[in-house]
Amino acid sequence: MSTDYRPMWSELGLDLEAHDVLLGVLGPLYAQTFTHQPNRPASMKYFDFVMSEVHGLRIQELVEAKRAGRKVVGAFCTFVPEELVLALDGILVGLCAGAEFATAAAEQYLPRNTCALIKGAFGFALARVCPYLSASDVIVGENTCDGKKKSYEIFKDLVPELYVLDLPQMKGPEGRALLRAAFVKFGAYLEDLTGKKLTVEALQRGIALVNAKRSAMHRLARLRAADPAPISGLDGLLMNQIYFYDDPVRFTASVHAVCDELEQRIARQEGVVPPGTPRILISGCPMAVPNWKLPAIIEKLGAVIVGEESCVGDRGTQVLTAATGHTVDELLDAIVDRYLAIDCAIFTPNESRVEHVLSMARSLGAQGVIHYGLLFCSPYQIEAGPVEKRLEREGLPTLRIDTDYGQEDVGQIQVRVEAFVERLRG
Amino acid sequence: MSTDYRPMWSELGLDLEAHDVLLGVLGPLYAQTFTHQPNRPASMKYFDFVMSEVHGLRIQELVEAKRAGRKVVGAFCTFVPEELVLALDGILVGLCAGAEFATAAAEQYLPRNTCALIKGAFGFALARVCPYLSASDVIVGENTCDGKKKSYEIFKDLVPELYVLDLPQMKGPEGRALLRAAFVKFGAYLEDLTGKKLTVEALQRGIALVNAKRSAMHRLARLRAADPAPISGLDGLLMNQIYFYDDPVRFTASVHAVCDELEQRIARQEGVVPPGTPRILISGCPMAVPNWKLPAIIEKLGAVIVGEESCVGDRGTQVLTAATGHTVDELLDAIVDRYLAIDCAIFTPNESRVEHVLSMARSLGAQGVIHYGLLFCSPYQIEAGPVEKRLEREGLPTLRIDTDYGQEDVGQIQVRVEAFVERLRG
Repeated sequence: MSTDYRPMWSELGLDLEAHDVLLGVLGPLYAQTFTHQPNRPASMKYFDFVMSEVHGLRIQELVEAKRAGRKVVGAFCTFVPEELVLALDGILVGLCAGAEFATAAAEQYLPRNTCALIKGAFGFALARVCPYLSASDVIVGENTCDGKKKSYEIFKDLVPELYVLDLPQMKGPEGRALLRAAFVKFGAYLEDLTGKKLTVEALQRGIALVNAKRSAMHRLARLRAADPAPISGLDGLLMNQIYFYDDPVRFTASVHAVCDELEQRIARQEGVVPPGTPRILISGCPMAVPNWKLPAIIEKLGAVIVGEESCVGDRGTQVLTAATGHTVDELLDAIVDRYLAIDCAIFTPNESRVEHVLSMARSLGAQGVIHYGLLFCSPYQIEAGPVEKRLEREGLPTLRIDTDYGQEDVGQIQVRVEAFVERLRG
Repeated sequence: MSTDYRPMWSELGLDLEAHDVLLGVLGPLYAQTFTHQPNRPASMKYFDFVMSEVHGLRIQELVEAKRAGRKVVGAFCTFVPEELVLALDGILVGLCAGAEFATAAAEQYLPRNTCALIKGAFGFALARVCPYLSASDVIVGENTCDGKKKSYEIFKDLVPELYVLDLPQMKGPEGRALLRAAFVKFGAYLEDLTGKKLTVEALQRGIALVNAKRSAMHRLARLRAADPAPISGLDGLLMNQIYFYDDPVRFTASVHAVCDELEQRIARQEGVVPPGTPRILISGCPMAVPNWKLPAIIEKLGAVIVGEESCVGDRGTQVLTAATGHTVDELLDAIVDRYLAIDCAIFTPNESRVEHVLSMARSLGAQGVIHYGLLFCSPYQIEAGPVEKRLEREGLPTLRIDTDYGQEDVGQIQVRVEAFVERLRG
């Protein structure tokens, strides 16, 4: 970062010393994970820049937008309807939860057997090192898993304003009615917060903005089907991660710029790895910035990741919101249907997820699936069993890796992934 | 057991050898935990008898009831509305989940970090040692916690018939509508199963039967407020456990018989412990038969447990169903309202629970609370933090014990409980 952002961070209430420690780890980790990848698309430079300014320029933009009267909504989950936020000229940003930070402090509030993502969110908040949290006018929680649902009851006392979105557990008519009511209530809350109205035009604008972002990700996903892979899995994941932070219009254009370059590469049969490199699909829990542990191991071992069936990935972006409605009610219905289609493991049953994994694996030419479970994430860890059985039955080799943000098990994971990659080569 | 039940067990499909192993552990464990307690009420003999015949005579009764055309509904949770089952002349029974059995087999289906209760249920089913499961015409699951919700997706392939009841996560109007729809659907399912109709008379009969059982438990709970305590916590828990297994009419009469005896004891100022013995309230996760680990430790160390804020305890029995409705719809509304009032940690927020703990502690004269969390039970383990803080703020010493069904931590728990009891004496 070229500018001195310390006065801004200070004004946001960050603990500058602790924040320096965080940046001192993040920068080198990013450099060693991303910048030395061979044959990277030149257009990834934009995303390098975004990451280098993720606590700087982007936060400055948020602060300026707030000064101009816009509201910033912080969220941890792909169930928060960005359409509504954008329709009211708000900004939706993901919050820091992808690394261990102040874990001891977090464990004063949470049982040790809480997933790393939740502990991370608490740690960042308690240590005052997440500028997105500080810049948010409201944090939106959601009743997804037990861990998040119950920890928001505690988190509400750690942040100035927390709004919790209720969610159903089944997708029948009552579940849909519950989700619709939750979205209507959230819309009214956002109207109050922003002083603006959810009109037909506003909703159509919000839907168009998010759909454009999703469509760009769909284009990227399709291009990753080429062999040789035109882009690394780490870079694909990075774009899916930045999806939650960047300005949506600029982000969409930048993804398309990468896609343009990838199309040229594909035409030249040029890739980041040789043709025939073992191709792996990742499926399971979300990987928030800077959680690059497992993909870095996989790609260092000579395989390439061709897709992410994850909230930070295809699960989060896969369905567009129908923009055909002519009334606020019809548009809200379309938004509700779009989010109800997310095949998150919090739903029961959740049969469409494994179909999605299978269809991704086939269309992307993946020879194997690595199922990523965050330790203590019961929904994905339990669903992993049936998913693995079904994939193996369909002839798709599957490896289950359950881990957290720690580095203690890296050696063990390497050994297992290496054996798995050999199986795929065989 | 005097009769040879082996032909019956065999017909029910039990694994006789494994079942012998189970009974060989259960019998002595019961004897050593219960029968040597000093100054036990004579009327507890009935419950000793029930426990000695819990896999014998009671199962024979179920088999005979089935032959007479009645249906047996097995359940794991206090959210399954017994009123509906009884209204249709069915029998609701709790299923085995209170002990470790065939854990290695269960862990082939479930992540290791799954709570002992769920693993126990899988172990009993896989090892074919739970005659209640075998005798059930249908097993009813419910979307309470992540662990149960997701593991029922796997459990359904291990049992002949599983019905899953959907539940809300919040108690607002949409949550209530969802619960009502779930109960109406379950009622229709039970009508199909039994070939009977949910009429006003049938529902009133069902409500009256369950309310009578609950009222008997309320009477017992009130009598446990006396000092010296007229009955041990272990025996109080035992009655709360047998609540889920026994014939409701006979059970109700037997609880009243104990209460009659306790009233005489109280009049004579006679107790199971000396006056002034430290009095403890247990709060938290349910303890299913034969999970007597923590209460046995507490009472062996010279304290007495005066109440259980638990699903197997006051949380499960505390609210009566209003029987004032004159139509099926009105009676269903009353049933829905009764179950929605349960202050289980699956709800968010769940503020009434800590009020209930406080009110129980005060009315029972408890000097301290031991919060019991099953390891990996996120809802109760996370809620334990705020509950403990609030109780301590109200001057009620609180000890958090998180454990499972294993014996490895008994020594450590003893040390902590001993220090806590000393604190209460101080």
